[in-house]
Amino acid sequence: MREKILSLVSAVMPNVIATRRDLHMYPELGHMEFRTASLVARRLKDLGFEVKVGREVMDPDAVLGLPSEEELEAAYKRAESEGADPEFLPLMRGGLTGVVGEWRTGRPGPTLAMRFDIDCIPVAESTDPDHVPFKEGFASRHPGEMHACGHDGHTAIGLGVAEIIPQIADQLCGNLRLIFQPAEEGCRGANPMAEAGVVDDVDYLLAVHLGCGVPSGHLYTRIDGLLASSKLDVTFTGTPAHAGSAPHAGRNAVLAMAQAIQGLYAISRHGDGTSRVNVGVVRGGTGRNVIPAEAFMAIEVRGATDEILRYMEDRARKVLEGAALAQEVELSVSVQGRGLSSNNSQELADLIAEEAAHVPGLTVHNEGHVTGGSDDFTILGARAAQRGAKVLYMDMGTDHVDGHHTPRFDINEADLQHSLAVFALAVARICAVK
Amino acid sequence: MREKILSLVSAVMPNVIATRRDLHMYPELGHMEFRTASLVARRLKDLGFEVKVGREVMDPDAVLGLPSEEELEAAYKRAESEGADPEFLPLMRGGLTGVVGEWRTGRPGPTLAMRFDIDCIPVAESTDPDHVPFKEGFASRHPGEMHACGHDGHTAIGLGVAEIIPQIADQLCGNLRLIFQPAEEGCRGANPMAEAGVVDDVDYLLAVHLGCGVPSGHLYTRIDGLLASSKLDVTFTGTPAHAGSAPHAGRNAVLAMAQAIQGLYAISRHGDGTSRVNVGVVRGGTGRNVIPAEAFMAIEVRGATDEILRYMEDRARKVLEGAALAQEVELSVSVQGRGLSSNNSQELADLIAEEAAHVPGLTVHNEGHVTGGSDDFTILGARAAQRGAKVLYMDMGTDHVDGHHTPRFDINEADLQHSLAVFALAVARICAVK
Amino acid sequence: MREKILSLVSAVMPNVIATRRDLHMYPELGHMEFRTASLVARRLKDLGFEVKVGREVMDPDAVLGLPSEEELEAAYKRAESEGADPEFLPLMRGGLTGVVGEWRTGRPGPTLAMRFDIDCIPVAESTDPDHVPFKEGFASRHPGEMHACGHDGHTAIGLGVAEIIPQIADQLCGNLRLIFQPAEEGCRGANPMAEAGVVDDVDYLLAVHLGCGVPSGHLYTRIDGLLASSKLDVTFTGTPAHAGSAPHAGRNAVLAMAQAIQGLYAISRHGDGTSRVNVGVVRGGTGRNVIPAEAFMAIEVRGATDEILRYMEDRARKVLEGAALAQEVELSVSVQGRGLSSNNSQELADLIAEEAAHVPGLTVHNEGHVTGGSDDFTILGARAAQRGAKVLYMDMGTDHVDGHHTPRFDINEADLQHSLAVFALAVARICAVK
Amino acid sequence: MREKILSLVSAVMPNVIATRRDLHMYPELGHMEFRTASLVARRLKDLGFEVKVGREVMDPDAVLGLPSEEELEAAYKRAESEGADPEFLPLMRGGLTGVVGEWRTGRPGPTLAMRFDIDCIPVAESTDPDHVPFKEGFASRHPGEMHACGHDGHTAIGLGVAEIIPQIADQLCGNLRLIFQPAEEGCRGANPMAEAGVVDDVDYLLAVHLGCGVPSGHLYTRIDGLLASSKLDVTFTGTPAHAGSAPHAGRNAVLAMAQAIQGLYAISRHGDGTSRVNVGVVRGGTGRNVIPAEAFMAIEVRGATDEILRYMEDRARKVLEGAALAQEVELSVSVQGRGLSSNNSQELADLIAEEAAHVPGLTVHNEGHVTGGSDDFTILGARAAQRGAKVLYMDMGTDHVDGHHTPRFDINEADLQHSLAVFALAVARICAVK
Repeated sequence: MREKILSLVSAVMPNVIATRRDLHMYPELGHMEFRTASLVARRLKDLGFEVKVGREVMDPDAVLGLPSEEELEAAYKRAESEGADPEFLPLMRGGLTGVVGEWRTGRPGPTLAMRFDIDCIPVAESTDPDHVPFKEGFASRHPGEMHACGHDGHTAIGLGVAEIIPQIADQLCGNLRLIFQPAEEGCRGANPMAEAGVVDDVDYLLAVHLGCGVPSGHLYTRIDGLLASSKLDVTFTGTPAHAGSAPHAGRNAVLAMAQAIQGLYAISRHGDGTSRVNVGVVRGGTGRNVIPAEAFMAIEVRGATDEILRYMEDRARKVLEGAALAQEVELSVSVQGRGLSSNNSQELADLIAEEAAHVPGLTVHNEGHVTGGSDDFTILGARAAQRGAKVLYMDMGTDHVDGHHTPRFDINEADLQHSLAVFALAVARICAVK
Repeated sequence: MREKILSLVSAVMPNVIATRRDLHMYPELGHMEFRTASLVARRLKDLGFEVKVGREVMDPDAVLGLPSEEELEAAYKRAESEGADPEFLPLMRGGLTGVVGEWRTGRPGPTLAMRFDIDCIPVAESTDPDHVPFKEGFASRHPGEMHACGHDGHTAIGLGVAEIIPQIADQLCGNLRLIFQPAEEGCRGANPMAEAGVVDDVDYLLAVHLGCGVPSGHLYTRIDGLLASSKLDVTFTGTPAHAGSAPHAGRNAVLAMAQAIQGLYAISRHGDGTSRVNVGVVRGGTGRNVIPAEAFMAIEVRGATDEILRYMEDRARKVLEGAALAQEVELSVSVQGRGLSSNNSQELADLIAEEAAHVPGLTVHNEGHVTGGSDDFTILGARAAQRGAKVLYMDMGTDHVDGHHTPRFDINEADLQHSLAVFALAVARICAVK
Repeated sequence: MREKILSLVSAVMPNVIATRRDLHMYPELGHMEFRTASLVARRLKDLGFEVKVGREVMDPDAVLGLPSEEELEAAYKRAESEGADPEFLPLMRGGLTGVVGEWRTGRPGPTLAMRFDIDCIPVAESTDPDHVPFKEGFASRHPGEMHACGHDGHTAIGLGVAEIIPQIADQLCGNLRLIFQPAEEGCRGANPMAEAGVVDDVDYLLAVHLGCGVPSGHLYTRIDGLLASSKLDVTFTGTPAHAGSAPHAGRNAVLAMAQAIQGLYAISRHGDGTSRVNVGVVRGGTGRNVIPAEAFMAIEVRGATDEILRYMEDRARKVLEGAALAQEVELSVSVQGRGLSSNNSQELADLIAEEAAHVPGLTVHNEGHVTGGSDDFTILGARAAQRGAKVLYMDMGTDHVDGHHTPRFDINEADLQHSLAVFALAVARICAVK
Repeated sequence: MREKILSLVSAVMPNVIATRRDLHMYPELGHMEFRTASLVARRLKDLGFEVKVGREVMDPDAVLGLPSEEELEAAYKRAESEGADPEFLPLMRGGLTGVVGEWRTGRPGPTLAMRFDIDCIPVAESTDPDHVPFKEGFASRHPGEMHACGHDGHTAIGLGVAEIIPQIADQLCGNLRLIFQPAEEGCRGANPMAEAGVVDDVDYLLAVHLGCGVPSGHLYTRIDGLLASSKLDVTFTGTPAHAGSAPHAGRNAVLAMAQAIQGLYAISRHGDGTSRVNVGVVRGGTGRNVIPAEAFMAIEVRGATDEILRYMEDRARKVLEGAALAQEVELSVSVQGRGLSSNNSQELADLIAEEAAHVPGLTVHNEGHVTGGSDDFTILGARAAQRGAKVLYMDMGTDHVDGHHTPRFDINEADLQHSLAVFALAVARICAVK
């Protein structure tokens, strides 16, 4: 069986690479992956999967960090003009760009879900002649948008798995579920999919990230050390007044913000592990001689554990409330993104390590690769684990010239094959007819 | 009549000076003027006045800035040993050291009240051989306490007026009321007397301050520019924690205080006039490696008008509440003193100017002398004015070597006679039998 | 002579009103008054004045608050297309839009300078049918720009004076100088004209402001209470870093700014008079998860006297330096505008009051009208006064529906005639052949 | 040999316990251990050690956190009256209470140093009848001072080792050095001993701490996780001014402190590990209505590594300097204590583990016990390690009812024997004649 799988993997690789390059040319930012998601849905349906999109797989009330209506509409129209699938596109209007494809074997068995994130980031791609996508003609055609975090590869792997499953379906039991998640950047898209229940009944949940500093040809079975994170938008609204003649009549939103900034950075470190806070973007006020009545800040808090994150977010909210009270201004806080800490099943890691050992050219490290970032796969993972599922987030190495989120980021396409092989072997192992 | 008055004034002056020097030797701090007040009451009773002290003239619930029980008891015992009057002393226990003497003429007519403040300040008196009280042997016998603001003179003037009234009583109508107020320093003693109603039925209310930068022999009919003021004690109470191993478990009272200090000084200036804020004394924390759970600060806010004071105090309280909320600590605020802004009757000033013009050696300025301080005569004044009384706070100049509240402060006793004459003439003018 | 003057005033009024309406249609922001200034220069030259513009009357090194090159160029091109004068326009390129017209009588006598400000403000004019400029078809044709502070009227008055001077020149001695100043808003344009020496040799310097809350038909000879003011742009530049993985590697510009904001508002009030500080506009940071390395704020400080302003600016600069030092970020401060406190000559006010008494329909108040704003006429005034000139800033009332700087601000054109008459009479009085 | 050692250990235990109880009755605070240290020196000399005290073993310029002269003198006098040794006492005057005893075998071999800390802490000992020292009559006779951290035991162990060494000296080579260090609490006493060179020539440096949460009968060979720490006293000195009349004339030390407090807590977390900051004690100001001109704070910073400590201290100093600059006040910072991070030799740990395995009743864990505190043994350890020595800080468990630094802290005296045995076996192993 493993040999057959590996040969199927080789067979579908040209498609995988073509898909990845097409996606690389048409990167789309979070909640605006209209072309990407509709084409994914089309392909899944054509391959025989049951396909759900939009409200069926995303709870609209749980969406975080939605772009403005103008941005959504502009992206929608662009997708239309770039070949988005007309059947699925309308169902995604307004930013509901999640897709779930389900293959039911009809035989009792476990449900194995695999998650792939599909969004790009706001970086202008390099036009350095040595930059492979530029040299080979598949660089981003969207100015200021780029697949600089490898999600084009993730999506292509997912569609590769989708091609293989039907070909081995008669030897499988249970259900296979492919989850294509929007808006991973900013930890926004997992929450509405989790709330819509897409992992509530799974027994296994598997995901991979390419790169993260691990070289090509190396697999770490676990991504560890992801910081739980909340991303908050904060607005203070006060009362304007002429700063010369009636300063007392104002209620100063910028002063409230200044007090809040100092208070946020001064939140006490947590004795049990890493905590973080940042005020990344601020703006406020309208004129030099007007007591400023509006202030905005984009902040984030993080913690090594979900409990430390709760501590940080609770303390941050008190600091914000205190600043608003002190200056007698209105406070508004909205959650723009949320991630949790790493939560991997060693049992599933051991199983993956066994299978991955059969992938040619791949060195397997059955241990955690620690990163200090955040990823909202953890939201899906926590939801599934609470219901008894085994969850694993793997790190598949790939040589990258420059870091993630830089204009010259690129992946080694050979590692797409490694990844696809690991997923396919996992499918065959977990859902093998007993 | 004016000649008779001026001759009576001359006659009682030796007593006035003797009284002033006795009081100078035994200065007592606010709410602890047990010897001073009981001897004043004794003298008033002996002169035929109706005398009320203690709870009859001070509302215990309205007392501000009371010393500790230990301090009160020590002062009480000291007064006992220094000749306090045994009839009145027990009625003053606990700090109720106000005295009111009333002379009812039995004839219908106005009620004229005069207020004299009786407390000293915590300054160690100079032992410079040129310092008159030291040279002449009547310097303070209480280490660290001194009449360095002239209240010994004020009290002596009041008792001088008390000696004169009986001698001209048959030519007077209405009522004459002598109010001896404790604890003017810190703006503490007027409030409980006002709340007890001692000026509620008066038609005229008169007071004087010696000095304030005006030279000997000059009277300004009005003290203007007194800043309304609130003096607040503030305590933050949090939770201690080991700063190394569990800093997150603490709730930091010193950090709340730091935030409050910045917020207090940053309260917006008022467009309508002078505002002030100060954090005069701070302390907090117990050990270098403990998240500090206690912090205290003594603050004050001021305003050119009562409305500006209200603005400052309201804003200050919000700042304090916001700081407490932000750090999740408890807040306690207590009013330790309160004064209002100047509130003089020009009609009464004109009347006084007319009379004072007859005082030998006195140059009269029927205008305001502006000071930037605070005085709680304004509390009594506002209460009386709200009920229709005419109120006036006069400034009687006196040469003083060094400023008020310094170890070498002294008054020119000649100005006591000027003051006494103005009061006596005012009595004769306002309460003259028509 | 007065009668002749008043009849000349009536005669030129149609031109004054036409000029005012033309300028109202083509308002231009500070340093970009290319059309306005070049047409003023053209007219002065045509009337026989010696005309200087650009570098001759503005020191380029002393220009404050210059717009960006892009803005300047766009405004220049727009002015070209809207009839700017081709002779003078090129001399003003880069924002040097000051104009000075000089009439030398050739007879010895005093130099009388009059200053008129010519810039508009960034307000979108009302399209309310009751708004006179809209109803009568001379509303602003420049979206978002409007003469909402009456400078169109000021400029028109100045050109009215320019029409009258040649007609009475044979009865005048000394020199008459008309100064058309750009960029009064933000207190920017007076400084470079002062530094260029345009008032260094004057004996009298006169200016007027329309409105300021005084009703039509009333003249206050003095505008008092102008606050001295400095307008500063502040930039902090630090080091970015990933807020999750290496927060210690960042140097936080936004935190420096927050500390500075609190410190600025907390600058101690000044005991000698009004002080003000405001942080009107802030922005900073680039991404939620990046330690912010850039922050900008637009601030201003003010004082009732030039000394209080110096105190405020000195203290503000220390606060900024301290914040930069604490966070180890770079600080840059640039002066964007500067005004001084009122500095009126009562002698000149008395002279004006005498003349103005002859203007029909005008009630003269020879006293100060107090405003809490700032105006950089004070820069020219201080420079002239230091060299012995008599300086006066008058307030000519005009009914205005809504306040200055609002979309419905408008002036009563009748008050242009009052103003013109006062200037013309002042010219005839001060420079009369003896 | 091991058997002989263990039997010597049993023989000296009565002395060890008597010593510990005597020290427990006469606890002395850091730098004031005059009785303790002089008696230690006496005993060492009587046993035949070369003894150095005072300036010979402490660099006076490197002393940190010295008590006031008054405190030092009072403690000195008390020690005199409680039996301090008259030969050594005078050499310790002024707080130089370190003692070093050296045993030179005369045979070439390694130098093994052992360090014992001797000071108590400011805690009032419990008088609970269940508290063993109270029940058995050896509770502290010094009110408010107590050996609540086990240093009485440490010192007694050291003197036990001193008793054994002469008895096995003929089988030893190299040198044996017993270092009795004052003022470990607050991390003060190690620095001057290190600077005096007391560990510069050692090959092995060994110390033990009793307790720290490890139960009786258990040895952890390494104390890990000690945080590097700097303890700083900070003073701001400004200019006082009357807060009502001339607030601008003040330079506000309390406002500088408030700004510093916020800045200190807001120092960015370090990406490489634990960092800490605390403002433990603050005080400032003299009167409610005086701009405060003096402020003091006791702070500390810590780091998981010496590098992180350096980062924290550097940043803290910048924050302090910035606050002083912003408020134009003087800043003074003095180091009151300093510790470094753990720095254990696994090679030496392995050797100890081998020997300790022979101690009856002792369970040996050759691993690190992690604590979050600080200890200035690390200063001696770092100095020795830099010169090539092998360094080890062991944790010998002891059951303690309540935590370290509490009134009911006590040790199990059985663990003194375990400790003494480990030291004695280590001596015999390391310095065995080859």
